[in-house]
Amino acid sequence: MIKALLFLATLILGVITTVYASPGYIDNRARGMATLDIITGGDTKLRLDTLTDIAPELGVWITNFAYGDVVSRPGLDLRSRELATVAALTALGNAEPQLKSHIGGALNAGCKPTEILEVIMQMAVYAGFPASLNGLSAARTVFNDRGITAGDLSK
Amino acid sequence: MIKALLFLATLILGVITTVYASPGYIDNRARGMATLDIITGGDTKLRLDTLTDIAPELGVWITNFAYGDVVSRPGLDLRSRELATVAALTALGNAEPQLKSHIGGALNAGCKPTEILEVIMQMAVYAGFPASLNGLSAARTVFNDRGITAGDLSK
Amino acid sequence: MIKALLFLATLILGVITTVYASPGYIDNRARGMATLDIITGGDTKLRLDTLTDIAPELGVWITNFAYGDVVSRPGLDLRSRELATVAALTALGNAEPQLKSHIGGALNAGCKPTEILEVIMQMAVYAGFPASLNGLSAARTVFNDRGITAGDLSK
Amino acid sequence: MIKALLFLATLILGVITTVYASPGYIDNRARGMATLDIITGGDTKLRLDTLTDIAPELGVWITNFAYGDVVSRPGLDLRSRELATVAALTALGNAEPQLKSHIGGALNAGCKPTEILEVIMQMAVYAGFPASLNGLSAARTVFNDRGITAGDLSK
Amino acid sequence: MIKALLFLATLILGVITTVYASPGYIDNRARGMATLDIITGGDTKLRLDTLTDIAPELGVWITNFAYGDVVSRPGLDLRSRELATVAALTALGNAEPQLKSHIGGALNAGCKPTEILEVIMQMAVYAGFPASLNGLSAARTVFNDRGITAGDLSK
Amino acid sequence: MIKALLFLATLILGVITTVYASPGYIDNRARGMATLDIITGGDTKLRLDTLTDIAPELGVWITNFAYGDVVSRPGLDLRSRELATVAALTALGNAEPQLKSHIGGALNAGCKPTEILEVIMQMAVYAGFPASLNGLSAARTVFNDRGITAGDLSK
Repeated sequence: MIKALLFLATLILGVITTVYASPGYIDNRARGMATLDIITGGDTKLRLDTLTDIAPELGVWITNFAYGDVVSRPGLDLRSRELATVAALTALGNAEPQLKSHIGGALNAGCKPTEILEVIMQMAVYAGFPASLNGLSAARTVFNDRGITAGDLSK
Repeated sequence: MIKALLFLATLILGVITTVYASPGYIDNRARGMATLDIITGGDTKLRLDTLTDIAPELGVWITNFAYGDVVSRPGLDLRSRELATVAALTALGNAEPQLKSHIGGALNAGCKPTEILEVIMQMAVYAGFPASLNGLSAARTVFNDRGITAGDLSK
Repeated sequence: MIKALLFLATLILGVITTVYASPGYIDNRARGMATLDIITGGDTKLRLDTLTDIAPELGVWITNFAYGDVVSRPGLDLRSRELATVAALTALGNAEPQLKSHIGGALNAGCKPTEILEVIMQMAVYAGFPASLNGLSAARTVFNDRGITAGDLSK
Repeated sequence: MIKALLFLATLILGVITTVYASPGYIDNRARGMATLDIITGGDTKLRLDTLTDIAPELGVWITNFAYGDVVSRPGLDLRSRELATVAALTALGNAEPQLKSHIGGALNAGCKPTEILEVIMQMAVYAGFPASLNGLSAARTVFNDRGITAGDLSK
Repeated sequence: MIKALLFLATLILGVITTVYASPGYIDNRARGMATLDIITGGDTKLRLDTLTDIAPELGVWITNFAYGDVVSRPGLDLRSRELATVAALTALGNAEPQLKSHIGGALNAGCKPTEILEVIMQMAVYAGFPASLNGLSAARTVFNDRGITAGDLSK
Repeated sequence: MIKALLFLATLILGVITTVYASPGYIDNRARGMATLDIITGGDTKLRLDTLTDIAPELGVWITNFAYGDVVSRPGLDLRSRELATVAALTALGNAEPQLKSHIGGALNAGCKPTEILEVIMQMAVYAGFPASLNGLSAARTVFNDRGITAGDLSK
């Protein structure tokens, strides 16, 4: 009897371990939410709820895949990741709402306002001045909304 | 007479100081070459020489403006700048030679191979899987050329 | 005399037949208007009139070439064509007014709202989440304007 | 003792049920592989193996997320999905290897060669003639590799 | 009887006149071929023939619409049109074969090599240095093929 | 003593000459402002001032590099340069504020309204109808603001 119990206990532990250790299951949702909470400053649920009327699965994919699987990976710190995202969205120049979100996200992840501006200015070299100028407009809006002043930028 | 000489000497010094202190002149060329030498691993002259047949001014702009004025700015370290450039060029997906140069440049600036891969993989989220897959192909070529192995990537 | 008349009549018929049978003339305008009337739900003239002040030829090209020559071709049904257009404009991410027009056009061509959403969501894979999210915003606006509700989406 | 066994058995069943019922775990991997096998004509493992040296996680994301979560969804048939992908990649014009894969994938999913050509030709309207011409070059290569001839195109 | 003949003759003339005077029929094909012959340096048929295996209609659209309706319009000279096309294709950065064709086309239309280089260099400002550098590579290839030397560039 | 003075004077003159003759210093700023004043119709300072709160260096780069080094170059007239910029920004389709600025700039540089429209319409061929239609919307706004009427367009 004890053998049977031990067998069952081992089985349970095995299943649980497999599940938790497997990439893409419970952990990645929790990791995704945790990472999103840093980036959004805690607004994650509120933002994902805007998708529930029309495409709730996209919210799941954003949490589990985009932030749980990808952005939460340990190989690069979140500050560098957010700067890379700001760089890419500035260069693409066709996703203003997401660029604003990630300028805010970069601030929430601990980037200094000047670091964000440096990345956006640098895009003038790699994607042209129009892309950089429109990125700066997005940054100005986000900074104004947060009360970040010219004085803060020189720090 | 000595007064006149002193006046002239002061004038000379003033002019020289103004020139050197002014943004966009001698300093930015030197700064640009220094930054480019880090990114190219010392190949700067060789690379810019490829432009002299057809558009030598572009080489001057790259040195003085792109790397002297922009990429050398103190507000962000060169590692973060190169990662931002790799992110942007992976997302744009239309500049393979420059993407390869900057993957190499990121390595030369001190980025770990895994950090570069993380940025390129992250672009699957923001610019789609094709952009990310083509970025990985570029990285594989650069890593192979440098003898970076799978073993190095797990470090 | 009757011979001459018959000859002339044959000539006339020949010319008319040539004209009507030739690709790119009368037929393609009629075909273009017919296809556009399906896509716009009958608003074609109204929409093309917005171009008459500044570039009336563009309206002719849209009718005769874009919809008469291309989109009216028999090799693919209009529903698949509109879904392909929604896919392309979502992926490009830089033509919001046209994306909205073609989300409406896809509905008018007989696509179900869910089919349109599936295409837009799928673009997260091939063009990144920002492109997909902005496509969903466009769809939400069009659906709201038409009174398409969450209940309709589950059908 | 029997109570304890029943409790353990219930627990095991509960965990297993939770795991299998949860979106994003075992099912989506199997679904992804099944969908990929249709698109690649059975080459899935071979193709994903090309990523194992440098970024094995990308292969997991492609299987589980891109094809398991997204492309396998029931709301739109695979033929329409592949045509939408061909449209998007032709319009973007910066992902030739993936465009070729999906032209082949569209054939494998049951699209007729002419349907694929119609989508690529239609992109001349929405993304310009250069994008369409380069899409046709990609199609020619794929068709030639498969022995699809001009005669097949008129069917 | 003569009256009837005259009536028929008038009718024939009327139909013919309508057809020839109408935009989008015989004239635009002839205009398109004439403009294409300038741009291609006489190779038009050869180049369009490359499309006949797979999408012959695209060749018709290019001749009748793209060059007959659009590029042949009198409001702007062909030199300015070709420079505008070189600018656009350099900036988009995803259509190298067409960029090369139009660099050659600009030369054939009477642009000086330096004018073409100036446009490509200028794109560094509006689309970034990578786009400009890749445009210069395309120009170098075309110039080399035509035996245009550095000496010719200073003229 | 006089020798020493002459030597010093020569040195001063040498330094000043070197500075002024060197590309990238005082001249390019003056040239940039002069070119910008033509393009903006005299508003240069006003426009650059919008950047002083957040990224004043970008204003310096625009003046000294973009317009002083690049757009002021003698190898191509300003009218052709502005038409090339309108072409590129219409084709990219992701920089509406800058497209409007350069439609105005093209007018200020001496382009006729019809020439600008021809370039934008031509982009339907190279970048698709959506890009061209959105370019026409931008032109309509600029023309309306300047009181350019349909009557002016037929001139």
